[in-house]
Amino acid sequence: MKLGFYTIKWADNKVKILDQTLLPTEVVYKDIGTPEAMAEAIKSLRVRGAPLIGVSAAYGVALGAYRSNAQDYPEFRKDVFKAIEIIHHTRPTAYNLFAALERMKEAMKKETAVPGLKDQLLQEAHNIKKEDEKLCTSIGYNGVTLISQDARIMTQCNAGALATAGIGTALAPVYLAQEQGKNPHIFVPETRPVLQGARLTAWELTQARVRVTLICDSARGMVFRQKPPIDLCIVGADRIARNGDTANKIGTYSLAVLAKTHNIPFYIAAPTTTFDPKIESGNQIPIEERHPDEIRKVGSCQIAPPETPVFNPAFDVTPHEYITAFITEKGILKPPF
Amino acid sequence: MKLGFYTIKWADNKVKILDQTLLPTEVVYKDIGTPEAMAEAIKSLRVRGAPLIGVSAAYGVALGAYRSNAQDYPEFRKDVFKAIEIIHHTRPTAYNLFAALERMKEAMKKETAVPGLKDQLLQEAHNIKKEDEKLCTSIGYNGVTLISQDARIMTQCNAGALATAGIGTALAPVYLAQEQGKNPHIFVPETRPVLQGARLTAWELTQARVRVTLICDSARGMVFRQKPPIDLCIVGADRIARNGDTANKIGTYSLAVLAKTHNIPFYIAAPTTTFDPKIESGNQIPIEERHPDEIRKVGSCQIAPPETPVFNPAFDVTPHEYITAFITEKGILKPPF
Repeated sequence: MKLGFYTIKWADNKVKILDQTLLPTEVVYKDIGTPEAMAEAIKSLRVRGAPLIGVSAAYGVALGAYRSNAQDYPEFRKDVFKAIEIIHHTRPTAYNLFAALERMKEAMKKETAVPGLKDQLLQEAHNIKKEDEKLCTSIGYNGVTLISQDARIMTQCNAGALATAGIGTALAPVYLAQEQGKNPHIFVPETRPVLQGARLTAWELTQARVRVTLICDSARGMVFRQKPPIDLCIVGADRIARNGDTANKIGTYSLAVLAKTHNIPFYIAAPTTTFDPKIESGNQIPIEERHPDEIRKVGSCQIAPPETPVFNPAFDVTPHEYITAFITEKGILKPPF
Repeated sequence: MKLGFYTIKWADNKVKILDQTLLPTEVVYKDIGTPEAMAEAIKSLRVRGAPLIGVSAAYGVALGAYRSNAQDYPEFRKDVFKAIEIIHHTRPTAYNLFAALERMKEAMKKETAVPGLKDQLLQEAHNIKKEDEKLCTSIGYNGVTLISQDARIMTQCNAGALATAGIGTALAPVYLAQEQGKNPHIFVPETRPVLQGARLTAWELTQARVRVTLICDSARGMVFRQKPPIDLCIVGADRIARNGDTANKIGTYSLAVLAKTHNIPFYIAAPTTTFDPKIESGNQIPIEERHPDEIRKVGSCQIAPPETPVFNPAFDVTPHEYITAFITEKGILKPPF
């Protein structure tokens, strides 16, 4: 599956990222040279999507290592752990972020010579990226078996190539279905407040000539009542509890309720690395609340009175009983989880 | 209940309307001098909300009568029916539009002298406006009995004072609760694509110092899962079938499904004039589809690739089994309808 873009790449001792805040009107790659710049890019959603946040976090730490002027191990370790600390405090919900930082900490144990350790840390970031690419492809091959000819599929937000280093999680089966001539038709809710559906999912599917219909989030229920029906829903995940409760973009829970009401299968596509073994159930997952102006404004347009009180959770939790199955790199996991 | 604005007024042989497309950033009253200008105002949502569309339609016909230079009845009748025709083809869903035009046709039968008829038509428009004000107040007094102290209420779109010539339909009970010191707290979904929740409902409730929390539409499900719970939902209606199926702003159906899932009472507030006796059930109600750019853009911001295919229904139908009761001027109507 060839895509016309990449999300993240190490080049010339810097990281190049596709600045997703500028899509769909501009395709701009931005150089990231420091852990601080990577933290800013993660916080401000220039890179986003749980798997890509993980890869970006690893490269952010690698940048900290490469920029370090320390000559001895204790000083170098301090610099690297400072980078880890900076990146740790960017976004609280996606489990991949913390898992990637843990792996970078582990990589620090591999040797004590500074130049060699710089290579080890960069290599670990490359490994995390390559593994993510493979995970996406495996999720795609497992998930495409669920997609029949001319299937009508609803997603939410962007769990596509733009959310990963590969061909996406929720959209990986869609890309493979397209490649196999199954002609899938994707219904894309715009996904307020940050509009990742409209700006990112519609854009990347259009690039790949996949059939798309864009709707506003509140039209999802009406689309489910129309003929022909939606065949299935596939969304991504930011963190999955041991019991299967799943945190994902705000609006996922209401999509799951609507899907259940209409007897439409509801799948979560995510690598098994998104399962957090320390979290028993969904109510323990921390949910990021973002700035009220994401709701009060769209771009520069003021759409509500400036002082309006706002509740702006970036994610919600879908209880496991609404989830038909998880599409993972290891296969399709059905309940009980 | 004193509000700091009005939505529509006859003055100096013209109609003054509050241009709702400019809210919340500008409060501008616009002079409407012809039926054509009124049709444009209705189509482009300068005036909107089913009851206000009805009142506006009546004044649009009155403008046609006042602008007519016809000296005899047949010519005058032609001018008036041309005005009715122009206004008829603005928005297909709201029943109040067609009901108001029917009343203006009836008023044409009252006499045959042109000057007297001009007065009759204007008087009928005034009557429709005054009746709407009274309907709102009656709905308010009937609905306020459902609101307990510190109630948390969710609505959708704008069925407030801005949607009527009075204190609103869905928000009328809220205003009276506020006046009675019940301290209601209103959760306002922004209501994409035209954002009447963010732009209009948040604005008018803030004017009246009612407590507001603005959310994006897809956060409604998550809010229902939070503590303390939402006590009830109240929304308006654009047309109600004889069996109780209700057409209202897109997103109403999904709100009703979520409310049922969470055992939250779901009320429709509307005058009995919103019931269309000719429509047996919801699937016979024509649903307006609006321009794709309402979804592809917000103001001047392009939020999706320009050619993205879009499905943009302005309304959906909530089946009667999701509706706890109708709050009307005649009382609270419970099923079976």
